[in-house]
Amino acid sequence: MEAGDAGDAMGVGEVQGQRMSGRLYGVGVGPGDPELMTLKAVRVLAQAPVVAYPAPAFENGGGESSARKIAAAHIPAGRIEIAIRVPMRPGREPASVYDNAAKSIVAHLEAGRDVAVLCEGDPLFYGSFVYLHDRLADRFPTTIVPGVSSLTACAASANRALVRRDQTLAVLPATLSDEALEARLAAPEAAAILKVGRHLPRLKALLAKLGLVEASTYVAHATRADERVVALADLDAETAPYFSMILVAKERA
Amino acid sequence: MEAGDAGDAMGVGEVQGQRMSGRLYGVGVGPGDPELMTLKAVRVLAQAPVVAYPAPAFENGGGESSARKIAAAHIPAGRIEIAIRVPMRPGREPASVYDNAAKSIVAHLEAGRDVAVLCEGDPLFYGSFVYLHDRLADRFPTTIVPGVSSLTACAASANRALVRRDQTLAVLPATLSDEALEARLAAPEAAAILKVGRHLPRLKALLAKLGLVEASTYVAHATRADERVVALADLDAETAPYFSMILVAKERA
Repeated sequence: MEAGDAGDAMGVGEVQGQRMSGRLYGVGVGPGDPELMTLKAVRVLAQAPVVAYPAPAFENGGGESSARKIAAAHIPAGRIEIAIRVPMRPGREPASVYDNAAKSIVAHLEAGRDVAVLCEGDPLFYGSFVYLHDRLADRFPTTIVPGVSSLTACAASANRALVRRDQTLAVLPATLSDEALEARLAAPEAAAILKVGRHLPRLKALLAKLGLVEASTYVAHATRADERVVALADLDAETAPYFSMILVAKERA
Repeated sequence: MEAGDAGDAMGVGEVQGQRMSGRLYGVGVGPGDPELMTLKAVRVLAQAPVVAYPAPAFENGGGESSARKIAAAHIPAGRIEIAIRVPMRPGREPASVYDNAAKSIVAHLEAGRDVAVLCEGDPLFYGSFVYLHDRLADRFPTTIVPGVSSLTACAASANRALVRRDQTLAVLPATLSDEALEARLAAPEAAAILKVGRHLPRLKALLAKLGLVEASTYVAHATRADERVVALADLDAETAPYFSMILVAKERA
């Protein structure tokens, strides 16, 4: 347990006179550039004896966790590490993956060990951490360390305002139907379309139909070594990585 | 000039063979807890000879800049500091404030000195930094250091998911009309209503009308010493600080 987190002094799952349970930390490690980690994320990783993170499933080739890679320099040697092997399938991830991960984490928390779960970007903004949060946050003291999200990182990489003053912002996953996207993009507000991936051709057609191509900027892998920022009008690719975004600037009516 | 910022090598305003101009940095210092500054923000402040920040105007009592207060431990002694005194009036800030601030900053940039402008939260997410960005980013090499925004900080303080998987998120300033807010809140999506302030009674009435009070959490001054998190149903205040938010959870239809 750490001091200084207001409201955490007597967390859920702690009983006076019994051994204190460990604390669950959801740690945002930011969008990719390790320098965009927060001082708090670095401190929590210096202290937590157990570190968990999502990683590609073995059936998808296994390999390195992106979140762990971002944080690697701040994970001391000898930590207990839990790689949560998440299958990359279309549709929802199997609940059993998170049931099993939660079980491993619970064992450490019940033994009094803090567990830091690494999350790309921010833990509560479209992250898979919510599946662990759903299972654990009611049972154990929990601290969320917010991180720089892909949303503001993409605006920074594009070097343009995301939203200003009285504008509204619509954050739209690319998986929405054409009808849903069109309804939202027709409104006089700024928009960010997330997780572009294989939806790129459809999104380009939709934005062209709405006369919004000139207002749109494409950003892939913001703040990473392979970052790409390009006006949508100049993008001739037919597919995009999962971690890419289209920012649409519109003035409020 | 720093190495390692991809795409910054030959910025606007630099002419080969002439003295290089300084670089403009928009530095997000996060939502309030100084530990939520990024490592990059800390490094930029260690290096930049000039630091600028918004501060209350003298007619509003003058006094300390919130952004500077967050970053204070990382501003070395002896730096040139520019306090941008912003009048707290309803409506738009006078353009002359930013014209004058831009003029001061330009003098340093043209003399080859980097200038770091401190921004609460993230520089491009509803920040007054956009007024300087509008005036300077086309003329000088510019780097935005994204920060933890109030949006994800409030979700972290509330300890609840902001958006998950295929949900959309509507980010709505409280200054919107009842009609505009109602139309947006009626949609099946998550919502965050920013800058609650004096709009609190109206927002409570509107959310009650839409049956959304139980789905709403009020968060003021997230991650600051005077942070307050309370279910909207339990909030009996009639006014709220400017830096407060209502998070509305809704499942997608």
